[in-house]
Amino acid sequence: MKQGILEAYRDRIERGLSRALHGHAPLRALLRYHIGLEDETGAPARATGKWLRPSLVLFVAEQLGGASDVALSSAVGLELIHGFSLIHDDIQDRDRVRRGRPAVWTICGIEQAINAGDLMHTLAIAAALDSSPTAANCLIRATQQMIEGQSQDLDFERRTVTSNEYLTMVDRKTGALLRCAFELGGIAAEAEDRVLATLTALGQAVGRAFQIQDDLLGIWGNDDMLGKATGSDIRRRKKTLPIVQLFEHARGEDAAVLETIYDGDGDRDLPPEDVARVIEHLDALGIRAGCEALVHKHLDEALHRLADLPFDDSAHDRMRELIEFLARRQK
Amino acid sequence: MKQGILEAYRDRIERGLSRALHGHAPLRALLRYHIGLEDETGAPARATGKWLRPSLVLFVAEQLGGASDVALSSAVGLELIHGFSLIHDDIQDRDRVRRGRPAVWTICGIEQAINAGDLMHTLAIAAALDSSPTAANCLIRATQQMIEGQSQDLDFERRTVTSNEYLTMVDRKTGALLRCAFELGGIAAEAEDRVLATLTALGQAVGRAFQIQDDLLGIWGNDDMLGKATGSDIRRRKKTLPIVQLFEHARGEDAAVLETIYDGDGDRDLPPEDVARVIEHLDALGIRAGCEALVHKHLDEALHRLADLPFDDSAHDRMRELIEFLARRQK
Repeated sequence: MKQGILEAYRDRIERGLSRALHGHAPLRALLRYHIGLEDETGAPARATGKWLRPSLVLFVAEQLGGASDVALSSAVGLELIHGFSLIHDDIQDRDRVRRGRPAVWTICGIEQAINAGDLMHTLAIAAALDSSPTAANCLIRATQQMIEGQSQDLDFERRTVTSNEYLTMVDRKTGALLRCAFELGGIAAEAEDRVLATLTALGQAVGRAFQIQDDLLGIWGNDDMLGKATGSDIRRRKKTLPIVQLFEHARGEDAAVLETIYDGDGDRDLPPEDVARVIEHLDALGIRAGCEALVHKHLDEALHRLADLPFDDSAHDRMRELIEFLARRQK
Repeated sequence: MKQGILEAYRDRIERGLSRALHGHAPLRALLRYHIGLEDETGAPARATGKWLRPSLVLFVAEQLGGASDVALSSAVGLELIHGFSLIHDDIQDRDRVRRGRPAVWTICGIEQAINAGDLMHTLAIAAALDSSPTAANCLIRATQQMIEGQSQDLDFERRTVTSNEYLTMVDRKTGALLRCAFELGGIAAEAEDRVLATLTALGQAVGRAFQIQDDLLGIWGNDDMLGKATGSDIRRRKKTLPIVQLFEHARGEDAAVLETIYDGDGDRDLPPEDVARVIEHLDALGIRAGCEALVHKHLDEALHRLADLPFDDSAHDRMRELIEFLARRQK
């Protein structure tokens, strides 16, 4: 029976992360807690992360004939960059919960959590450099894009943005690391430029489908373990793609109503009656269907690129399954 | 006329920093402001930084026959790591002023300042990697140590520490980057292991002399442009070496008095009468002279190591001048 991509590499990834984060200093223990290898007392924990990005690195590298230890170092580096960004994100957003557990900053304070993120950042690049300078360069570029996207995202909270600006931002903020996963797999296998370009395009399309689906779930998703409730992104005034499009398309009195709802103190949650009105406006303008069509467009693009990769048939199937899971997941 | 090490490379360093931080994104402009290349409006500024660390890289590389462009990339990387750490330090310490200008976080907020530091961190490693993977590895290791030292320093605010713990902490927090400056110079010149080991020992000794002198100035220094007033570290309850030694050596009633003074709300400044009493106790125990003797011990060690390096006579003189300046500066 063929094994899904997200199941195949868990043990190796966790061993690699554990090696990269070893050490007795309290800051190291915090990092192991954050990534899910340990609980708050330092006891081994059952990691709840999906290890999406490192699994992609290892799968792509394996399919293209890369050495598995070379791929593992860069896969670990990529996951650590993702982890570092979440530590700092949670401080910035004052999110108290991460994967159902207390966020790092709620445990050690903001000051020490800044250090924890910084340390994970530097350990990440060290791991990628263990793989190769090319892998490290690729990861550094993606990290830059991610940070610049995060910076734009904060900036967008304070002004009106267009769909294009929004999509450029998420290409950086969340797309860069997903793209990098595909690229690092190719780099570990020393793939030729044509293949690397296909991997980049595939990663780009998967990243967009994934992000827009995430935005849809943030409004129309079911309650889930991450603590996201229906309409939760609206309540929290997050300007995700549906809201950006709503502001673009609303006219006349509707636009004025929306302005009034979103006007005022950005730190205050929207009251339930305003959340309901925003959802009504979204429904009236057919924005959900429009965003779903976009997800499908990028999903098709991804599958089209996938077909160009020199994977065997079973590998094509497994990758298609993962991509469709990412683009269609319901939580 | 021979030129001092801190004067010789200013233009090249500033051109290198400017190249590394180019770009239109607002975050890039913030980084150029922070490092001193631009003012708050984005207009070119007269940088006030000494560029101590990158100047050391370039000088050592030049003396050992390294290519100047290779050395410059790693010198720029090192200065950017220093810069990134200052952005995050100022957030952690809520310091509102840096080099006589508003700290980054006071301009853009804590959230965006975390991003600014993160971006400078990643650009730093990219620059070092442009030099060589060995240079990048050296800088990454030093960055890890610096962050772990910073983390220990925060931890020390909440408990009693010994002189040894304190010195280990500052070896990391501030020593690591100074040591790295000497090492990167050697790496750029592909120096042999024996020379690299001497450079490490030299950097270590200079770092200690520099840090202890800094601690002395924080208590007995004159007012200066950095805004430090006499006794300012006491007023701010900073546990620098003289205070750590004071707690180690005070006995009986004196110890009880000190405990009472330092007990209580760590965020509140000590009142002037308590600052004066602490200084009295320091004087009574001869702690200033003891710390000055330590500075001289490390200065001697540094000069001893310097004598082992294959520099020409004029270079020995210029380096000795710089080391003595660092260990004896009065502000």
